[in-house]
Amino acid sequence: MTKPTYEVTLQPIGRRIEVPAGTNLLDAARLAGVELVAICGGEGVCGSCRVHPVSGQLSPRTLTEEAELSDDDLAAGDRLACQAEVLSDVRVGIPPESFTTPQRLQLEGQEIPPALDPVVIPLEVEVLPPSLGDLRSDLTRLRASLAGLGHADLHFGLEVAADLPEKLRANNWRVRLAIRGDEVVAILPPPIADDCSQITNHCSLITDHCSLYGLAVDIGTTKLAAYLVNLESGETAAKTGAMNPQIAYGEDLISRIAYANDHPDGAQMLQGKLVETLNHLMDELCAEAKVSRAQVVEAVIVGNTAMHHLFVGLPVKQLGEAPYVAAVGEAMEFPASQVGLRLAVGAYVYLPPNLAGYVGADHVSMLLGAGLFGSGDFAKHPGRVSRSFTAEAVTTSVHKTIVALDIGTNTEISLFHAGKHYSCSCASGPAFEGAHIADGMRAAPGAIERVRIKGGEVKVHTIGGGAPVGICGSGILDVVAELLGAGLLDKRGVLKGNHPNLRVANNGIEFILTPAERSGIGGEIKITRQDVNEIQLAKGAIRAGIEILLKEAGIEDQDIELFVVAGAFGTYLDLQSAIRIGMFPDLPRPRFKQVGNAAGGGARKLLVSKEQRRLADEIAREVNYVELAVHPDFMKVYIKALAFG
Amino acid sequence: MTKPTYEVTLQPIGRRIEVPAGTNLLDAARLAGVELVAICGGEGVCGSCRVHPVSGQLSPRTLTEEAELSDDDLAAGDRLACQAEVLSDVRVGIPPESFTTPQRLQLEGQEIPPALDPVVIPLEVEVLPPSLGDLRSDLTRLRASLAGLGHADLHFGLEVAADLPEKLRANNWRVRLAIRGDEVVAILPPPIADDCSQITNHCSLITDHCSLYGLAVDIGTTKLAAYLVNLESGETAAKTGAMNPQIAYGEDLISRIAYANDHPDGAQMLQGKLVETLNHLMDELCAEAKVSRAQVVEAVIVGNTAMHHLFVGLPVKQLGEAPYVAAVGEAMEFPASQVGLRLAVGAYVYLPPNLAGYVGADHVSMLLGAGLFGSGDFAKHPGRVSRSFTAEAVTTSVHKTIVALDIGTNTEISLFHAGKHYSCSCASGPAFEGAHIADGMRAAPGAIERVRIKGGEVKVHTIGGGAPVGICGSGILDVVAELLGAGLLDKRGVLKGNHPNLRVANNGIEFILTPAERSGIGGEIKITRQDVNEIQLAKGAIRAGIEILLKEAGIEDQDIELFVVAGAFGTYLDLQSAIRIGMFPDLPRPRFKQVGNAAGGGARKLLVSKEQRRLADEIAREVNYVELAVHPDFMKVYIKALAFG
Repeated sequence: MTKPTYEVTLQPIGRRIEVPAGTNLLDAARLAGVELVAICGGEGVCGSCRVHPVSGQLSPRTLTEEAELSDDDLAAGDRLACQAEVLSDVRVGIPPESFTTPQRLQLEGQEIPPALDPVVIPLEVEVLPPSLGDLRSDLTRLRASLAGLGHADLHFGLEVAADLPEKLRANNWRVRLAIRGDEVVAILPPPIADDCSQITNHCSLITDHCSLYGLAVDIGTTKLAAYLVNLESGETAAKTGAMNPQIAYGEDLISRIAYANDHPDGAQMLQGKLVETLNHLMDELCAEAKVSRAQVVEAVIVGNTAMHHLFVGLPVKQLGEAPYVAAVGEAMEFPASQVGLRLAVGAYVYLPPNLAGYVGADHVSMLLGAGLFGSGDFAKHPGRVSRSFTAEAVTTSVHKTIVALDIGTNTEISLFHAGKHYSCSCASGPAFEGAHIADGMRAAPGAIERVRIKGGEVKVHTIGGGAPVGICGSGILDVVAELLGAGLLDKRGVLKGNHPNLRVANNGIEFILTPAERSGIGGEIKITRQDVNEIQLAKGAIRAGIEILLKEAGIEDQDIELFVVAGAFGTYLDLQSAIRIGMFPDLPRPRFKQVGNAAGGGARKLLVSKEQRRLADEIAREVNYVELAVHPDFMKVYIKALAFG
Repeated sequence: MTKPTYEVTLQPIGRRIEVPAGTNLLDAARLAGVELVAICGGEGVCGSCRVHPVSGQLSPRTLTEEAELSDDDLAAGDRLACQAEVLSDVRVGIPPESFTTPQRLQLEGQEIPPALDPVVIPLEVEVLPPSLGDLRSDLTRLRASLAGLGHADLHFGLEVAADLPEKLRANNWRVRLAIRGDEVVAILPPPIADDCSQITNHCSLITDHCSLYGLAVDIGTTKLAAYLVNLESGETAAKTGAMNPQIAYGEDLISRIAYANDHPDGAQMLQGKLVETLNHLMDELCAEAKVSRAQVVEAVIVGNTAMHHLFVGLPVKQLGEAPYVAAVGEAMEFPASQVGLRLAVGAYVYLPPNLAGYVGADHVSMLLGAGLFGSGDFAKHPGRVSRSFTAEAVTTSVHKTIVALDIGTNTEISLFHAGKHYSCSCASGPAFEGAHIADGMRAAPGAIERVRIKGGEVKVHTIGGGAPVGICGSGILDVVAELLGAGLLDKRGVLKGNHPNLRVANNGIEFILTPAERSGIGGEIKITRQDVNEIQLAKGAIRAGIEILLKEAGIEDQDIELFVVAGAFGTYLDLQSAIRIGMFPDLPRPRFKQVGNAAGGGARKLLVSKEQRRLADEIAREVNYVELAVHPDFMKVYIKALAFG
């Protein structure tokens, strides 16, 4: 008799696999092509392959699990994938930190969009051809047809008007217009279906040569993420990414602003490089989704204030000098051609508002992407939201007390409490991006992303699983947390005690993570006292920012009902490590949400929803920006926050 | 006892000169620096130096004048300047055809503008500087000040917003905005006067570094005329001209359209060449008027439909194929930067509507420039309007029956009658521009512009007075008219009879205008039978167009109350010659008005008056365009119109 097989469904990605009874969930996931973090290789000693069973029967909890999982996790019913065996059809949720990094990157963009209400909509129209008896211009005849459809007084920009004669003649005097408010931004072929009246707002009858698309881009200081969204269905049709080409002219914001200021045409050059890359990404997206550039009728671009200004062509000089103000705080929109972005001829670019010089449009977009405003669209996704990956599963509203932050060289923090929104920016430095760290690197294959110290044993897990070549932000965070847990690091950040991997070097005490013979670079990979101090400064700044906002609102840590962590690093980091080193307050785990690249998600929402743009304006209008540099309590709070625990 | 001296005032140019009693008006004009045409050199035998006394005492009319002047001229009290001697202070009007060509060109742009109501107006504003206590963006703080001035919700384009931080800081947080509707198009320094409240709409208190200017351009197929107009005073501050650089790619419209269609990027190249020249003209105008490019906040561009489309970047393919329709008939406006025209960063270009494929925006502008609509502004110029040079002296309204035309390779004709407007275009060919004429040339120095045949004697007058090098349009017209008057040409256009200058050559009979020994080119200058036929075809087309419009309105030649002739050739031509060859109907002379470059005048009006833009739209909406090619009577009328007299 053969073993029975059962179906394992992995959420939130929706992957399914049939496995023989008794297969453990780690193996089941691997068979389904889903890589989970398993630092110990499935031996049950690292506690990193945590999953959340939703339905079905698994083998009973093991003693290993009781030892490795936290009380919170145990209370929530969580399991270790390597320990839990399948005894029926099961459905299992995977928290973001249990995915390996490449797997996580694949997860983005699978969320459900908000109610469709895009700023650009289609309209089919038939036009009379000219004749010796009707010598009106092409545009005049088109206008007459539009008036008949109740669309008098539409505005046609230069490039769209120039496109009209050829498009009318090529399509036998029937075209599909892309309308943005009172302006026509593109002229497309008509749908193949003969009867225009059957075309609904949804794309079911429309072949893809004429559907309207939008481009959403999150311009990070380091990375670009670009998405092509079908404006008629709300679906993300393609996504891609690239390094920000401006990196060659300055790794961080400050050096890039300096480059723009110190070189003639420096800003223009930075803009040109960026737009060139965006145009390449557009080509990639269009090729992947098999749509033409002429169909991409709108773009939403988000970025921090400096990236925003450099993209738009606004001066950044005043961003680099006290008091560091933006040229433009308001939401902007202008023809894409004005910055050289090649979309449909009349397409516009929209950028949400910047809240301050160092709290940019990407923060606004993150707040929207995290679904903090209005919950209607997401209410249909039931389940335990605390462990759900997608941003939109955050079924809350701003009536709760919420902290939302995006960790980077500058960390932007928002606090919502009692109908008020407080926001600040803190200089957390680039340590979590792997910079200023002896063996630091970006989150790329070979980077150590998880670390466990168990007695004399040090276990590491790398992105891609290969030999370690360096350590990325989430790995550094883990090391510091584990050293604290092992008593090898004191409150002030001093390495001490006895451990085979701890040794005295020229520049002070070091902790060896990977000996030379097991690393992929021929040398050992270590953490220095200096590295620990960088992390100390970073986490101190972030925690101080949170504390100052809480002070402004007159509340305490424990009043926070929802703590949203956005961005790549914020999603990959181990919450327990972040709490252990004191970067985040020690809240019950269900209050934390790691929402991924919510800024990119917000950009996509802004593409398909006028309501989201209205919300963006409202956020900008109502924010209470707190300048930490002049806050009377900042120094005191910061110094306190520097201590580990 | 010395002779008394008297003041001679020359109208419409307003030049004044003191001369001894008894000086004739031709000499007085010369002393005043005003060149009048005097084919015979002041001998009183050519009748070309006709002037119209307005006030004061002149010597009695001579027998020479009675012989040389027409009955109409005599009845009007006209004199020959070479015969009339000054006996008191006098005021004398000079009809346009009595000026030499270079002098005429200098006269343009001296007319009184319409009531000032420009589309762009200035607004001074003071902005709070940023501080650690006020970290709002530059734009947000400016908006707050504007809201306080009752200007909330102004729109800022990309380039204007980018200009803001530097302008605010450079001018100590006080700037002068140029506002166009609800958009800010330029940021200028504030006036020097300390108290902003004293600044009125007029420019008296405003030093010129911050006055608002506009650029008006008439893009002819051959020539460009450009004007810089102070939008706050209405004055024309500078004017200049150049050849249309597209000439190198096709002399006439058809060949230029063909070039655009047949060469990849041909249209783009033609646009680029044109805009490059316009930018040079802008630099010239700004240098002459001592203003900066940043002050030029609006442009009005007029041209025929093909020039319009090539400038804007609209396709011209359908203009070159039946049924020859425009891409856009409506008035257009768009940022100047979109076509590469370098004005103030946010400046717009406005183009009035095209009435049809071959009745362009320049025709609309001509009708406005000729002052056919609304008379209020011009009523203050009394006097006998029939001989007045300036377009604006036409104190009429469309309630009269008016013909208005602009002669070129295509001649556009409008007829206003009984509240209706009829318009057509006729293919008059390039003969009047000197093309397709054996010794033809453009109106340039050395061109024969006036011809008189008296018995065996042939007198010619050249532009600039030098030795003849060719013959231009008004000269050709004169020759044909004089040959008809001398009985040397029959109704069918056949040269015949006995005259020392008439001879049989290889290609038929020729008439020698200038023998080789007196010409400036080493060879003789002649008129051939072929030349006469070219004129015949041209005048036949023009007259047929006029007649068809009259038929459409159901009226006759003699019902025309005002006959407006616009354009360079139309202004320089001798009306008597035009009537004699049958190109124009034989109306009483006072009904004719030669209005100069009224299209350029119209463009300037469109710069400073929203009302004129409204009128332009109205003209386009209400015109009845008559397509001659399909008019049932056209052939019959045309063949009849070919006959001379």
